Amino acid sequence: MLSHNQTKLLTALQVKKYRQKYRKFTVEGEKMAAELLAQQRVGVSAIFGLERWAADNAALLQPYLEKFNPVSEAELKKISALTTPNKVLVVAELPDEPFDPAIFQRDFCFFLDGIQDPGNLGAILRVADWFGIPAVGCSPDSADAFSPKVVQASMGAFLRVKIWEMPLEDVLEIMPDLPVLGAVLGGNNVFQAELPTKGLVVIGSEGRGISPAAEARLTHRLTIPRHPSGGAESLNAAVAAGIVAAIIRNH
Amino acid sequence: MLSHNQTKLLTALQVKKYRQKYRKFTVEGEKMAAELLAQQRVGVSAIFGLERWAADNAALLQPYLEKFNPVSEAELKKISALTTPNKVLVVAELPDEPFDPAIFQRDFCFFLDGIQDPGNLGAILRVADWFGIPAVGCSPDSADAFSPKVVQASMGAFLRVKIWEMPLEDVLEIMPDLPVLGAVLGGNNVFQAELPTKGLVVIGSEGRGISPAAEARLTHRLTIPRHPSGGAESLNAAVAAGIVAAIIRNH
Repeated sequence: MLSHNQTKLLTALQVKKYRQKYRKFTVEGEKMAAELLAQQRVGVSAIFGLERWAADNAALLQPYLEKFNPVSEAELKKISALTTPNKVLVVAELPDEPFDPAIFQRDFCFFLDGIQDPGNLGAILRVADWFGIPAVGCSPDSADAFSPKVVQASMGAFLRVKIWEMPLEDVLEIMPDLPVLGAVLGGNNVFQAELPTKGLVVIGSEGRGISPAAEARLTHRLTIPRHPSGGAESLNAAVAAGIVAAIIRNH
Repeated sequence: MLSHNQTKLLTALQVKKYRQKYRKFTVEGEKMAAELLAQQRVGVSAIFGLERWAADNAALLQPYLEKFNPVSEAELKKISALTTPNKVLVVAELPDEPFDPAIFQRDFCFFLDGIQDPGNLGAILRVADWFGIPAVGCSPDSADAFSPKVVQASMGAFLRVKIWEMPLEDVLEIMPDLPVLGAVLGGNNVFQAELPTKGLVVIGSEGRGISPAAEARLTHRLTIPRHPSGGAESLNAAVAAGIVAAIIRNH
């Protein structure tokens, strides 16, 4: 049985302010719950699942028995951020790793410059997770990477990709010599350009692309060439991130 | 002044059944309205805009004066599919071009095999529009390419990219020798594979990827290589479409 206070606290975690305050976020669905419970990096605070989910996942649940709370379908619906709740909701601990410049120094990382759409943000984290991009920096005006919608769209990328919120200038103050790549109009063809072996790949926001402040810091101005018969003014931010990541990993 | 019947008809166009029945769809926002009014391919049936939008766009509106209906902000809110309506809503005529195999015979085209998410479908049409992919086939179980959400996410791609709804088997019955490319697990590295100069690029659905029926028709089984340190199980459908399109246009 869920108490009124538990329900209130759990739904509060759908809001960034409370995720920050309690240092927790929610992860829903059988698949992501299974991934989360099977790893050690991200802490598990509590599990709210249907009895039949618990029965089907006894081995997985074994180390967490004292954190498990059986709930009814109606209770799950009350605390879920999904339209169609899926058997289990896990309360996880927000990663609290201190910013680690060493990761940024040795490989490519993304920097999200004001990405607003949770679906895009999730898809970009998934791109990072697919192409082995170890860390993603987020400008403070980006959407929150631990909101339910982003977590859902990222398909568990937060378990493997490190995510830090920090202004670009702070990152570059720590690492002033880091190459900074970005897709802009009128840059060098990304298929032909000389590319560094590491660096920050800046992904501009949906509405305005890369901000003037970030564009001023680019060391590599790249362009995904539009076909001569193409008419679109731009590509979706996650699509552009995917294309650049595919190329830096395979050129 | 909008009559009750007009309001009912306009909001009905948010539903596929009524778009099909009336052969019309809606396009919202200043930018896409300007693009739509400036071209000839897609017919304009009616325009509902704020007086100040009309004043600011007098030249654009000139050929359409008898189709223009001034509305108040409150009226626009009633007929809009957007959370924040943007000055103008245009009722456009659903393209009625007969299926043209010649387009598919001479270039790469997409075939969407059950894409469900309107944001993904819109982003894929935008990919087609950027890379000059002239036509997109949609399986009957894909989301409708003319729904307000898809139109919004596609940023006007429907003005340039031809879109047909048709089962894959029908397309291939007409063109049995067409190369059929698709991203699957365990295919050839798309960066290294020998690629044809034309063909159908099948994009699988978000949930299950390419359907078994479509996979059986692939002549080119391709894989976007996952980095050895990557953990994701798959890429977002629009991201995958973008990467394949970038490569077929630049290899």
